[in-house]
Amino acid sequence: MNIVVQNIERADPAVIAGLAECGVATVHEAQGRKGLLASYMRPIYSGAQVAASAVTILAPPADNWMLHVAIEQVKPGDVLVLATTSPSDAGYFGDLLATSAKARGGVGLVIDAGVRDVKTLTEMGFPVWSKAVCAQGTVKETLGSVNVPVVCAGASINPGDVIVADDDGVCVVRREEAAEVLRKAQDRLSKEEEKRARLAAGELGLDIYGMRGTLAAKGLKYV
Amino acid sequence: MNIVVQNIERADPAVIAGLAECGVATVHEAQGRKGLLASYMRPIYSGAQVAASAVTILAPPADNWMLHVAIEQVKPGDVLVLATTSPSDAGYFGDLLATSAKARGGVGLVIDAGVRDVKTLTEMGFPVWSKAVCAQGTVKETLGSVNVPVVCAGASINPGDVIVADDDGVCVVRREEAAEVLRKAQDRLSKEEEKRARLAAGELGLDIYGMRGTLAAKGLKYV
Amino acid sequence: MNIVVQNIERADPAVIAGLAECGVATVHEAQGRKGLLASYMRPIYSGAQVAASAVTILAPPADNWMLHVAIEQVKPGDVLVLATTSPSDAGYFGDLLATSAKARGGVGLVIDAGVRDVKTLTEMGFPVWSKAVCAQGTVKETLGSVNVPVVCAGASINPGDVIVADDDGVCVVRREEAAEVLRKAQDRLSKEEEKRARLAAGELGLDIYGMRGTLAAKGLKYV
Amino acid sequence: MNIVVQNIERADPAVIAGLAECGVATVHEAQGRKGLLASYMRPIYSGAQVAASAVTILAPPADNWMLHVAIEQVKPGDVLVLATTSPSDAGYFGDLLATSAKARGGVGLVIDAGVRDVKTLTEMGFPVWSKAVCAQGTVKETLGSVNVPVVCAGASINPGDVIVADDDGVCVVRREEAAEVLRKAQDRLSKEEEKRARLAAGELGLDIYGMRGTLAAKGLKYV
Amino acid sequence: MNIVVQNIERADPAVIAGLAECGVATVHEAQGRKGLLASYMRPIYSGAQVAASAVTILAPPADNWMLHVAIEQVKPGDVLVLATTSPSDAGYFGDLLATSAKARGGVGLVIDAGVRDVKTLTEMGFPVWSKAVCAQGTVKETLGSVNVPVVCAGASINPGDVIVADDDGVCVVRREEAAEVLRKAQDRLSKEEEKRARLAAGELGLDIYGMRGTLAAKGLKYV
Amino acid sequence: MNIVVQNIERADPAVIAGLAECGVATVHEAQGRKGLLASYMRPIYSGAQVAASAVTILAPPADNWMLHVAIEQVKPGDVLVLATTSPSDAGYFGDLLATSAKARGGVGLVIDAGVRDVKTLTEMGFPVWSKAVCAQGTVKETLGSVNVPVVCAGASINPGDVIVADDDGVCVVRREEAAEVLRKAQDRLSKEEEKRARLAAGELGLDIYGMRGTLAAKGLKYV
Repeated sequence: MNIVVQNIERADPAVIAGLAECGVATVHEAQGRKGLLASYMRPIYSGAQVAASAVTILAPPADNWMLHVAIEQVKPGDVLVLATTSPSDAGYFGDLLATSAKARGGVGLVIDAGVRDVKTLTEMGFPVWSKAVCAQGTVKETLGSVNVPVVCAGASINPGDVIVADDDGVCVVRREEAAEVLRKAQDRLSKEEEKRARLAAGELGLDIYGMRGTLAAKGLKYV
Repeated sequence: MNIVVQNIERADPAVIAGLAECGVATVHEAQGRKGLLASYMRPIYSGAQVAASAVTILAPPADNWMLHVAIEQVKPGDVLVLATTSPSDAGYFGDLLATSAKARGGVGLVIDAGVRDVKTLTEMGFPVWSKAVCAQGTVKETLGSVNVPVVCAGASINPGDVIVADDDGVCVVRREEAAEVLRKAQDRLSKEEEKRARLAAGELGLDIYGMRGTLAAKGLKYV
Repeated sequence: MNIVVQNIERADPAVIAGLAECGVATVHEAQGRKGLLASYMRPIYSGAQVAASAVTILAPPADNWMLHVAIEQVKPGDVLVLATTSPSDAGYFGDLLATSAKARGGVGLVIDAGVRDVKTLTEMGFPVWSKAVCAQGTVKETLGSVNVPVVCAGASINPGDVIVADDDGVCVVRREEAAEVLRKAQDRLSKEEEKRARLAAGELGLDIYGMRGTLAAKGLKYV
Repeated sequence: MNIVVQNIERADPAVIAGLAECGVATVHEAQGRKGLLASYMRPIYSGAQVAASAVTILAPPADNWMLHVAIEQVKPGDVLVLATTSPSDAGYFGDLLATSAKARGGVGLVIDAGVRDVKTLTEMGFPVWSKAVCAQGTVKETLGSVNVPVVCAGASINPGDVIVADDDGVCVVRREEAAEVLRKAQDRLSKEEEKRARLAAGELGLDIYGMRGTLAAKGLKYV
Repeated sequence: MNIVVQNIERADPAVIAGLAECGVATVHEAQGRKGLLASYMRPIYSGAQVAASAVTILAPPADNWMLHVAIEQVKPGDVLVLATTSPSDAGYFGDLLATSAKARGGVGLVIDAGVRDVKTLTEMGFPVWSKAVCAQGTVKETLGSVNVPVVCAGASINPGDVIVADDDGVCVVRREEAAEVLRKAQDRLSKEEEKRARLAAGELGLDIYGMRGTLAAKGLKYV
Repeated sequence: MNIVVQNIERADPAVIAGLAECGVATVHEAQGRKGLLASYMRPIYSGAQVAASAVTILAPPADNWMLHVAIEQVKPGDVLVLATTSPSDAGYFGDLLATSAKARGGVGLVIDAGVRDVKTLTEMGFPVWSKAVCAQGTVKETLGSVNVPVVCAGASINPGDVIVADDDGVCVVRREEAAEVLRKAQDRLSKEEEKRARLAAGELGLDIYGMRGTLAAKGLKYV
């Protein structure tokens, strides 16, 4: 049963923009330390930091047909998220598909497989988080699905969920929880400011967080 | 039986130069999606793009003696290609060997093992594609061979074959097929230009490639 | 038995500074090719080159409590070295801890686990060599120890040992051997200068090192 | 938010028993080639073949507290399914926990982490499918959850889903689809009987499945 | 260009039978320590020891169509050897294909990918050496080739080469060299008998092989 | 500096025998959850359970010369423990070396590399815990050391330390602590007997260990 779900709901663009500013580590903490993709997902270049609505793809190994199908479903501000039915490091995506995705308003790709033309993608400023960089070509023979729930790099992702990605990796935020997570993330950031200042001044986390008593109670000995 | 084959044939320098311009992904596609080395072979710095004739080395684990032997066989425009008889991530190659290889006209190294002094190699502009960056020293105790057929990172490579390498990885083109592959690669590139323009204008791959009928025939449902 | 050893001995700062200039590959060779950490330990950004005294940490998986404890033990010129009791790629360390470590004079982190906030750490110029980049949060529930001998990424490290780290990876030098290793490393570097010049002029390692006789004696055949 | 969901729905025991007889490969095919856990999940001994209702556990790395909590929720015919919040290979489960799980009617464990006491577990006939065999001890410090949806070894599993496991690995069947999947699996098995007989008699799949025309049409050449 | 080569040459059956008796480690040594496949290739059950002529298959990832094609080319005493164009751990082969291969006289499978139905294959006594055990289903959509040279698990294998496989792994012997390798292997075995007796009697390898002088000359110190 | 230390101290044979009976998981717990080797160290056959004094070997990659040297140092009840200076999966050890080691009273091998002839070793009842099974041959060219401190599979091991190994893996106990660890391990085992009986009777760990209060205090909710 291979389907393309055409009209998915997305989170509020203002919320998405806010999450982008918070970054992966803060968002991940703010939502209770869940939603992180496996650490093998690495950006093809440093410095990109995005948040975007997921257009999900479930694709066969080394078959990128569904990427062509998915690009039609991309709306401005979306990110493509590709999971495979069986592990693959083939190069599903290159500069032509990036040109097409960008023309539709796509802002990036998260792929539990390989990507190629990374030099051109870098020049285009089209960020990709992937398991591998690999030039291996793919076929267009077997169907998959678009905008169905997927497990990508160990995380469960629904279409329309918010993907936050930067140099630390990739995190998913449930669409329904995005506003609440943003609030908590911003709260966290504001509190970090004060702590950063105190730590920069040489104060110790042991004192700021009041850890000395608990450490002693657990039995830590200084010798 | 350890041998050094001294006079190998090389492809036409103009063909090699043409392949360098095409890059790994295009060349790999143009020759029927074969010849790619495993995706764990990564460049030590971004941006290098070369094509060169392979001087092949079969070396014992953590023993770089044959690299010294191989450098004598390097002619201007050659790339060293090292495979091991048993897996190793030791640092076979550093700035002294790079200085020597460069002095002979060598343009890079592809090594299914480790490399070191990568900061200096980067400053020298001597590109290396390797399985690992590792400072572990090597010995000079056991013979190997130079300019024999090897399997390097999963690809079969003969001396004199053309190696194409860039940020996407490494591909080998048989010497005898190099001119034909170049023709197909250039043909492919020129066709991509037109497609890129149409995709950039917002046209969909689904339409450009006429995929809608086949997708429907295979049973893809839009919901 | 969880302990914090408070007053560790350190090597002579001048010796440490000298080792930093030599770099990992040279220092590793100079001390007889020992002390290298596993090659999966990679820097979060290119170009950093440090030598520093190790403040060691043995920490539970995904629990960064002991990092707070360790920072109090940091003196100017120290590097934090974290090993785990069981493998983990969680993000033990981010920009707040780096701010704190830096305020105490810490010059970097070597961690057989994950690190996060790498964009900010890079901007701060606080170098980290790690097994993973990962935003996964950690807890503060279980004790470990500080300044005890640890095995980190396959190398045995004692508190106060000198850590040398650069783009090639990480190497440990025993505190007691640091001065002697520096002497040998500097000797090695000065000898390399002459070799580099001869190799750059096109002379072969085969001749400089007088290898031809040995190769023939071992049975290498030129064909 | 750490919770224990106490009353989960389970599939019909007769359906579960039927799925056990079909085995992983057949069940996986019958439900459209989905639901398979990653191939690194291996049985601690050969020959076990079970189907059971999942009592799911989301646990911190190297912390097995939630296993004690989960065992109270086990009903006869259940299997424990443990996912971690961050990768771990620690030994969460051994012969004491197996004794307890067995006393409650539990029939096995699927764990995306490590298991220990495997010799005793084998003697007890308590099957485990795990990522690792590892004696590393765990703590009881940090909460997780029981009977919440988890991603285990790359597969999304809900409490009460049917787990099918044998020497080929582990597959999950949605509780709601179990009866339908069983019907298709049994249908598939009955059809395989006839094919097996024909293949055993020397007939070729090429002829039984009528592949020769399609192969020729796709361009396969016999030389 | 997808082809099936129909009439391949095979080595002398008596030579093949002789190689089976020698086993992988001896054969590998006898031919100069070459031809070994990567050590991740493991048997699905212990104790099998075969030598057979390779019917080679180059297959796309997760597509087992070419196995059906290859089985028609199997003659009594052959082993199927499958390499992929891109890495895969999918379950290409199960009990139906084994039934068919066995009916044609096939004696085993070497596959740089996954296998399933391993319990039944074990009961059938049909040995498989594979990279993975995995129930993941495959498609029949994309052509590959049969009886072309392949690189399988890092070893170059030609159709008709002799595959030797046992609990130690898999080794390939060139068809043209098989008789010579057998002679050397048998010679090696007969010499080992005498050594084994002396070692069993407590004599040391140091003395039998006369190593003490060389060790001292290289600088080994007893303290 | 390559040395062979000839007279090492060993633990009391009665203590060693006691530790063997306790097994890896219990001993590891009894000494405070330390000393475990990485979980990739697996036995070549199931069921072996040994404790023995370590004769340590530091060897170059794919060079087994030092094994011959080490066997002379083996006394009845010793186990060989081999670490490498750089990672290798080559087959350092086979049936001839096992025959020799057994003749000297050796009871097994722990090797952070490869082993071969595993069928024969199994028949001989000579247990090996290794990183790989691999037939790849080794050379005898480069010195290493015997009975020096080594890091093997992530654990620091001194000559004469007690190695405990079974189906759960391998653990090291410091020679000086062996008697104390045995006492604690036996104590632990006797306490487990009572717990096992209560758990087998259906009592819950939650009650036996009095966990309900702590769980509630930490915030676990039952829903």
